[in-house]
Amino acid sequence: MKIVVLKFGGTSVGSIERIKNVVKIIHSYHKKKYKLIVVSSAMSGVTNDLIKKSKKISNNFSPEEYDVLLSSGEQVSCSLIAARLNHIGLKSRSWLSWQIPILTKGLHKNAKIISIYKNRIIKYLKEGGIPVIAGFQGVNLNNRVTTIGRGGSDSSAIMLAKFFGAKRCIIYTDVEGVYTTDPNKLKNAKKIKVISYEEMLEMASLGAKVMQPISIQDARLNRINIEVKSSFKKKTGTLITKRKNILSSKIIAGISSTQNDAKVTLVGVKDKPGVAAMIFKPLSKNLVNVDMVVQNISANGKETDLTFTIKTEDLGKTKKIINANKNIKFRKILLKKDVSKVSIIGVGMISTPGVTFRMFQALAKKNINIQVISTSEIKISVLIDKRNTKKALVALHNEFKLED
Amino acid sequence: MKIVVLKFGGTSVGSIERIKNVVKIIHSYHKKKYKLIVVSSAMSGVTNDLIKKSKKISNNFSPEEYDVLLSSGEQVSCSLIAARLNHIGLKSRSWLSWQIPILTKGLHKNAKIISIYKNRIIKYLKEGGIPVIAGFQGVNLNNRVTTIGRGGSDSSAIMLAKFFGAKRCIIYTDVEGVYTTDPNKLKNAKKIKVISYEEMLEMASLGAKVMQPISIQDARLNRINIEVKSSFKKKTGTLITKRKNILSSKIIAGISSTQNDAKVTLVGVKDKPGVAAMIFKPLSKNLVNVDMVVQNISANGKETDLTFTIKTEDLGKTKKIINANKNIKFRKILLKKDVSKVSIIGVGMISTPGVTFRMFQALAKKNINIQVISTSEIKISVLIDKRNTKKALVALHNEFKLED
Repeated sequence: MKIVVLKFGGTSVGSIERIKNVVKIIHSYHKKKYKLIVVSSAMSGVTNDLIKKSKKISNNFSPEEYDVLLSSGEQVSCSLIAARLNHIGLKSRSWLSWQIPILTKGLHKNAKIISIYKNRIIKYLKEGGIPVIAGFQGVNLNNRVTTIGRGGSDSSAIMLAKFFGAKRCIIYTDVEGVYTTDPNKLKNAKKIKVISYEEMLEMASLGAKVMQPISIQDARLNRINIEVKSSFKKKTGTLITKRKNILSSKIIAGISSTQNDAKVTLVGVKDKPGVAAMIFKPLSKNLVNVDMVVQNISANGKETDLTFTIKTEDLGKTKKIINANKNIKFRKILLKKDVSKVSIIGVGMISTPGVTFRMFQALAKKNINIQVISTSEIKISVLIDKRNTKKALVALHNEFKLED
Repeated sequence: MKIVVLKFGGTSVGSIERIKNVVKIIHSYHKKKYKLIVVSSAMSGVTNDLIKKSKKISNNFSPEEYDVLLSSGEQVSCSLIAARLNHIGLKSRSWLSWQIPILTKGLHKNAKIISIYKNRIIKYLKEGGIPVIAGFQGVNLNNRVTTIGRGGSDSSAIMLAKFFGAKRCIIYTDVEGVYTTDPNKLKNAKKIKVISYEEMLEMASLGAKVMQPISIQDARLNRINIEVKSSFKKKTGTLITKRKNILSSKIIAGISSTQNDAKVTLVGVKDKPGVAAMIFKPLSKNLVNVDMVVQNISANGKETDLTFTIKTEDLGKTKKIINANKNIKFRKILLKKDVSKVSIIGVGMISTPGVTFRMFQALAKKNINIQVISTSEIKISVLIDKRNTKKALVALHNEFKLED
């Protein structure tokens, strides 16, 4: 059975007109004789409204009831989609997670799908039906409604693709796909036709908000091709697939930049083993996420400067933690907010020497000073002054010919 | 186990503040050591909004999906109530019908509860929990969500009281109880403390919109005492119970009046067997509900006048049906819209002679002409000019001393 999973995000089903449009999209796949599994998010705004209600009821709202509350949103959108499919003459029905069932384990509000019972859906597909499955939710062994934490309905779609052996999972959303860089920051940004899971993971975790990293990781592990596209425009989207499916010779797939990083420098730290741990342990305990780290070479062998980046909102907390911890010895603390992390991402850099050099040179040509550097196998990140972000994006976009 | 069922209507849970208030009411019963089963409707406005959405999706919305759609409303209110009960430190959780389960049969949108599995709820009650059950919904043998047609959440409450052997079912709503007559029409109307099922059935079907007749009938058959009261004011409500529990010596419990009746008179109808049937059969087929019927005594033995009442909105349809049916012979058709049916209701009239006389005399004294009369064991209805309605209500309210 050739199954395709179609997932629609909140904005794609955000109004009655949009639901009618989504049904036209489903119809077009149905005409091509695919067996379809449809997954939907709640209509946009609904989930936020329910969260607002929960906050007014209690600042400590029961997680079990939170899941019951929020899952009502997908129930509404799925029934509307199925009824509209019926309206145009197609056999369809909504499936809530307990009706399939989609079994989850783990904490409420953050459950994970561990199993999907296939029999009923397979039977329904064989009868020619189009199941419309409520995303974002499951049921646990206690017969209680759960919601999937990170990834939400995307995770549901990927897991459905996995359990039903679908080779394709199409994620309909309000953007046309994944771009070489944020189109809001650089109007020359180009839509990427094909990108590897690994590149996409780096893009996603760096702020390209198309999909949650956890869903991309699930797709990667299960070798599911993801197509991200817009439900509003009939255009090819971005295919996220495994490396060896990618024929393109581009070295760099995309460039990302952040807006809310801050830099902390501890001047005159004792240069001896265990010092870094002493600094980062209390930060980690207090949920401050340290991103880039650089330790300068010690000039005199006794003292060094330690620089790291954190999210701007954690700046106050970090300062307090470091000052409170008397074991951390240093001469001076320097804090800097107006910095931006610019990263180039691409599996191509593994086999291409000189990428780092080209990046640094391109920035140097524009007089952009690099404050911190960090690299991974398929990513190079630099910390620069925030006011230079746009200039850096343009320079790197040109250098690696992403407009072509 | 001494179980009390508490049911809250849509306006009673119509906002976050009202839900907090409802939780205070539940708490007050909990303090009295009752085992509580809470049933809730959807927050007011929600169901109508969902119905509007369904109409925009299709003028022939699938009944199966309609039930999935609408049942989301009670899911929201129940989770909010349970979470608020948790917030004030009480053990509580929401129960959706498939989790209990509440089994229904019959058509979607109009299902009937046939069985409620008790084990899980009993266990939960024994553990000290307060179950908050979604009203208006059930699940059928196909594992699909259904909604209860007439009676809605009231029916759910009564059936829960029946299956769990609760002797009391308290219906919280936005009125303080059942009144001797509509307080909007007569400001002297008094709240009735106790009323029999039979009287309440007549009151309900005559337009006292406190409860659906079907729920009262279910309560009557299962001998469940219903207390109707306001969730907004701390006041005694109205107890609906069996006749012999009522010690009050009132002959008449209440007076009702209608606003949208119309009178049809066929003048010069052939006075022979089968004529009335010939007239009413096509009306019934076309869903025109004929209420009061009077056939005058034939003066010459050949011709008679036939008068009946229908709902005003059926007037055009009725005229068309009668004129279209060539088998119905008559000389003239008279249509009259501005009429009102005024009824006095009370089990006391069974054992008290002269009630009819007193009613007619009271109306005659005020020069109110009676156009049609119909009587049942516990009800006398008269058709009068609509402009006399208020005058008639006052006269009868005084005559039967309902203000005392």
